[in-house]
Amino acid sequence: MNTEKLAEAIYHSNPLDSERAGQSAIEGIVDYLAVSYQTKSEKEMMTLKQIVLEQGGNPTGYLIGSHLHATRSQAALFNGFQAHLLDYDDVHSDVRGHPSAVILSALFAVGEPEMHGKRFLAAYVVGVEIMARLGEAMNPTHYLKGWHSTATLGVIAAAGAVAYLRKYSPRLIAETMSLAATQSAGLRLQFGTVIKPLHVGIAAKNAVESADWIGMGMHSNPDFLTGFFEVYAETNVPDLTVNWGKTWRIVTPGLWFKQYPFCSAAAHGADAAAFLHQTYGLTDQDIESVRICFPPDGDSALIHHDPETGEEGRFSIEYIVWLALTGKPLSFASFESKPIPPSWRASLQKVNRITDATIKPSKEALPKGRFTIVTVTATNGNVLSKRIDTPKGSPGNPLTKSQLKTKLLHAIGDEARAEQLIEAVHSLPISTLGVFQEADCKS
Amino acid sequence: MNTEKLAEAIYHSNPLDSERAGQSAIEGIVDYLAVSYQTKSEKEMMTLKQIVLEQGGNPTGYLIGSHLHATRSQAALFNGFQAHLLDYDDVHSDVRGHPSAVILSALFAVGEPEMHGKRFLAAYVVGVEIMARLGEAMNPTHYLKGWHSTATLGVIAAAGAVAYLRKYSPRLIAETMSLAATQSAGLRLQFGTVIKPLHVGIAAKNAVESADWIGMGMHSNPDFLTGFFEVYAETNVPDLTVNWGKTWRIVTPGLWFKQYPFCSAAAHGADAAAFLHQTYGLTDQDIESVRICFPPDGDSALIHHDPETGEEGRFSIEYIVWLALTGKPLSFASFESKPIPPSWRASLQKVNRITDATIKPSKEALPKGRFTIVTVTATNGNVLSKRIDTPKGSPGNPLTKSQLKTKLLHAIGDEARAEQLIEAVHSLPISTLGVFQEADCKS
Repeated sequence: MNTEKLAEAIYHSNPLDSERAGQSAIEGIVDYLAVSYQTKSEKEMMTLKQIVLEQGGNPTGYLIGSHLHATRSQAALFNGFQAHLLDYDDVHSDVRGHPSAVILSALFAVGEPEMHGKRFLAAYVVGVEIMARLGEAMNPTHYLKGWHSTATLGVIAAAGAVAYLRKYSPRLIAETMSLAATQSAGLRLQFGTVIKPLHVGIAAKNAVESADWIGMGMHSNPDFLTGFFEVYAETNVPDLTVNWGKTWRIVTPGLWFKQYPFCSAAAHGADAAAFLHQTYGLTDQDIESVRICFPPDGDSALIHHDPETGEEGRFSIEYIVWLALTGKPLSFASFESKPIPPSWRASLQKVNRITDATIKPSKEALPKGRFTIVTVTATNGNVLSKRIDTPKGSPGNPLTKSQLKTKLLHAIGDEARAEQLIEAVHSLPISTLGVFQEADCKS
Repeated sequence: MNTEKLAEAIYHSNPLDSERAGQSAIEGIVDYLAVSYQTKSEKEMMTLKQIVLEQGGNPTGYLIGSHLHATRSQAALFNGFQAHLLDYDDVHSDVRGHPSAVILSALFAVGEPEMHGKRFLAAYVVGVEIMARLGEAMNPTHYLKGWHSTATLGVIAAAGAVAYLRKYSPRLIAETMSLAATQSAGLRLQFGTVIKPLHVGIAAKNAVESADWIGMGMHSNPDFLTGFFEVYAETNVPDLTVNWGKTWRIVTPGLWFKQYPFCSAAAHGADAAAFLHQTYGLTDQDIESVRICFPPDGDSALIHHDPETGEEGRFSIEYIVWLALTGKPLSFASFESKPIPPSWRASLQKVNRITDATIKPSKEALPKGRFTIVTVTATNGNVLSKRIDTPKGSPGNPLTKSQLKTKLLHAIGDEARAEQLIEAVHSLPISTLGVFQEADCKS
C-alpha cells in the first residue's frame, strides 16, 4: 500500500516544472564532476580499474572522467567509488549522508548517448527526493544503529531514479526499489577505510542491477516498505508522499557542497577553528588545551578520536580542528592514507570533545539542530571561543557559483575543459552524455 | 579480537583429518549437484543466462551444469541462484538456512581447473562451520527479525571459505569476511518470489567479489564481528572458536537433504500427512477439517496461509499438508509459479494451524525443538492424528546413499552421467573441476 503510493508518486513526477529544481540539479552535477575529477591521481582508482579490467564485459556504461567504457554494473561501481573516495561529495541533511554520489553514479552508468537530458535531470531530482524522505523517516535511529545511510538508503533511491529514468510502470518501479532494498547494506564500522567509498560504488551497482534485472523479467515483492522499515529502523512507515512535488528536497533544504575532503559533521568545527587561527594568529605553542562542544549525537559520525592516518583523520574532529587552529592546510594531502606524524598525534591529546544538551541550536542551523563551539585555552591564560551554526558550503551559507567553478577547475586543472564541462551540464537537456568522459586520459 | 581469533582458527583448519567430515562434504556435493541439475527446464534459469550474456566478461568461472563459462562473479550468481531455485537444497539446523547453496556456489565459481580437490573439500567444511557457528550465535533473533539467514550469514561463510581455499593470511581472511559482512543483506519478505533464490546467488557473488577485491589490494576493517552482531542480532559476540575442529558441524548435527522442493519447516507436516493418507486412504471428500500443531515459532518460515501460486505454496503448510493428505503429488509441478486451482484453494480453508508451547519436543528432534502434529477430523466423525519429530532426509532420519543417488539420477535423467558425476565427486581430491560442466548443454 505505502510502497504502491510512493511508486505512483515517482511515476507521475515532473520535477522540472520547477525551474529551481532544475538549477539545483545542475549545480549538483557540477559539484559531482568536481569531486570525481579530483580523484585522478589517487592510487585506489587504479585498483578499481584493475578490478574492472580483470572482469571484462560488454562496454555499455560510462566511466566518468575516464576514456574507458565498462558494463553498466562496473560503471556504477567505479563512478560511485570515485565520487565518494575523498569524502568531498555533497551531503543532504535529511539523508544524513551523501545523495549524489550514489544516485548520479547509477544514472551516469545507465545513461545512453542519445538520452534526453531533461529526463536525466528529472531522475536525479526524484532520486534525491526518495533518499531524503527515507532518511527523514528512518533517522536518527537507522544511522545511530550502525548503518551507513548513504549506501543503505542510496541503493533504493538510485534504483528508483533509474526506474524513473527508464519510464518503468509504477509496479516495476516498486519492484526495482524492492530488489534494491533487499540488497541494502553497509556498516559504519568501515568508516576510515577504503570500504566506505566502496559502499557507495556497491550501492550504485546494486541499484543499476536491480533496475536491469527487473527489466529483464525477475519479479520481487513490490510491497517492501513495511518490512524494510521494521528491520532497518524498527519503526512504522509514514506516508512518504505527503506534499510530493510541492517543493523538492534538492532545493529545500538543498544540497551541501563541501569545501574540504572530510566528514561534514566536522565542517562547523573546522570553520570555527580557522576563524580562531585567522583572528588570533595561533600556533602550536600558543595552545594549552582545546574543548569542542557538540549537541548530543552531533559528533557520532566522527568516530576517530586518535586517528593513525589522514584517512582516519577525515572522521576525527580532534585532528581537523588542530590542523585548522594551527594554520595547517585542510588540503587533500592532509587526508591521505599515510600515517599522521607522531608530533601531530601527540598534540591531539590536548583536544577534548563534549556534548551539551542545554545549548540551544540556532533556528537557521542546517543540518537542523547542529552547531559546534571550539574553545581554546591559550598558554597565556586567555580563553578564545567561536561558535558556528552554518558552515561554508551548507545550504544556509552556500558556495557561490564562482566558488563551485573554482572547485571544478581545481579538480581538472584545465580551465577550457572546466568551462566546457560546465557548459555541457547547463545544456544537458540537449547534449549527449559522452562529453563527461575524458578522451585524453590514457589510464 | 574475536574476529582475529576466528580468522586464526579458519587459517589453521585441517578438517580432512576427520574422515567423516570428508565423507559428509562428498554427500553434500552430490546433493548440491542433484538440486542444481534439477533446474534444467526452469524458465528462470534462462532469464539469468540472459543477464550473464548481456553483461559479458572474461570467462574465468564455472557455471555448474552448463557448457558456459563466465566471470567468477557471474558464475557465483548463477550457481547460487540455480542451487536454491527449487528450494530443494540442503538445510542445516544451526544455520536456520541453506549452507551449501551459497558456499559451494562461491567455491565452484573460483575453482581453478588444476586446483587440488582436497583443499576444495576442506574449504567447504570450513565454510559450513563458519555459517553454523554464526547461525547458532545469532538465531533465532536474527532470523525472526526478518533476515534471510541463508544470504546474510552465507555471504560471510562463503567469503571465509574462498579466503581459506586461496590460503589467505589470517588478516586477509578477516578482511574478506568483513567486506562480505558489510554487504550482508536479504529480507524474508521476498520469500515466495524468485528473489529468494536470487539472494543466494547475490550472496555467493558478493562472497567471491569480497575475496577477489581484498586479494587485489582493497582493505577493510578486519575487526567486524562486534559491530556485525550488534546491528544484525542485537547481541554480543560469543567466542566462535570453542572446540573448533573437535567435531565439524557438517557431520554433527549434519546436513539435511530434502526429499521435496519446499521449505524444510514443512517437512514434518508433509510426512505426517502422507502417513495419514497412506494409512487411511483419505480423499478430499473424507476431510471435514485439519489442524496442524507446531511448537512456538516452528512455522515462522511458512509465511503463506492462503498461497496464490505453487511458488508461494513452498511456504504454505496448509497447501503442502492438503496435497499430501489427499494423495496429490509433492512433485516439482505442484510448486511452480503458476496459479493454484481455485477448487484447491477453497479446500485450504479447512486447514488451520496452531502453536502449542506445552507439548514437549522429542530429545531426538532435529532441528532441536521441532515437531509437527497433523490432526484430521473426518466427515464420518473420526479423528486421525500423526506426529513427526524427525522427517525423512533430516539428520535423524537421513537419505540413504542409494536415495541420494536416485535424487541425482532423477535430476539428470541419464544414469551413466549420474554415475560419472558421483565418481568424480568421490575422486575430487585428484579430479579436475571441469567435469561438473555439461559439454552437451547448448543453452
